[in-house]
Amino acid sequence: MSKAIFYHAGCPVCVEAEQKVAEAIDKSKYTVEVVHLGEAKDRVAEAEKVGVKSVPALVLDGVPFHINFGADLSALK
Amino acid sequence: MSKAIFYHAGCPVCVEAEQKVAEAIDKSKYTVEVVHLGEAKDRVAEAEKVGVKSVPALVLDGVPFHINFGADLSALK
Repeated sequence: MSKAIFYHAGCPVCVEAEQKVAEAIDKSKYTVEVVHLGEAKDRVAEAEKVGVKSVPALVLDGVPFHINFGADLSALK
Repeated sequence: MSKAIFYHAGCPVCVEAEQKVAEAIDKSKYTVEVVHLGEAKDRVAEAEKVGVKSVPALVLDGVPFHINFGADLSALK
């Protein structure tokens, strides 16, 4: 199984992306984890390390894809 | 079936997004169409109409999600 991590911060743009994009991911190929960086601040560094600059972002096998724009990662530290 | 349209312009950012994101879409839920706007210029207006501003973009049931940034739509007209 491949790993998909959807990072968000609870913002409206994030919620829409989670409901549509994270939901559209093929669960037979990917294990999808949803991480709220506003609540799990200890995981901001992990997101940053793989190249996440803003949320919402979807990381597929370690490759970050920024989806629209909700908030800069720096605002969540 | 829901409809997913992945708009791109052949740029490296687009290709990576297509290979990872479009490929990760659940094909049992979505019919995925891939549109190269550099080659199908007659479809730029259609993309613009649903709110696509840049490519690569994934439109899920008419809702546009901009993925990273490859090129502005205006550069493709």
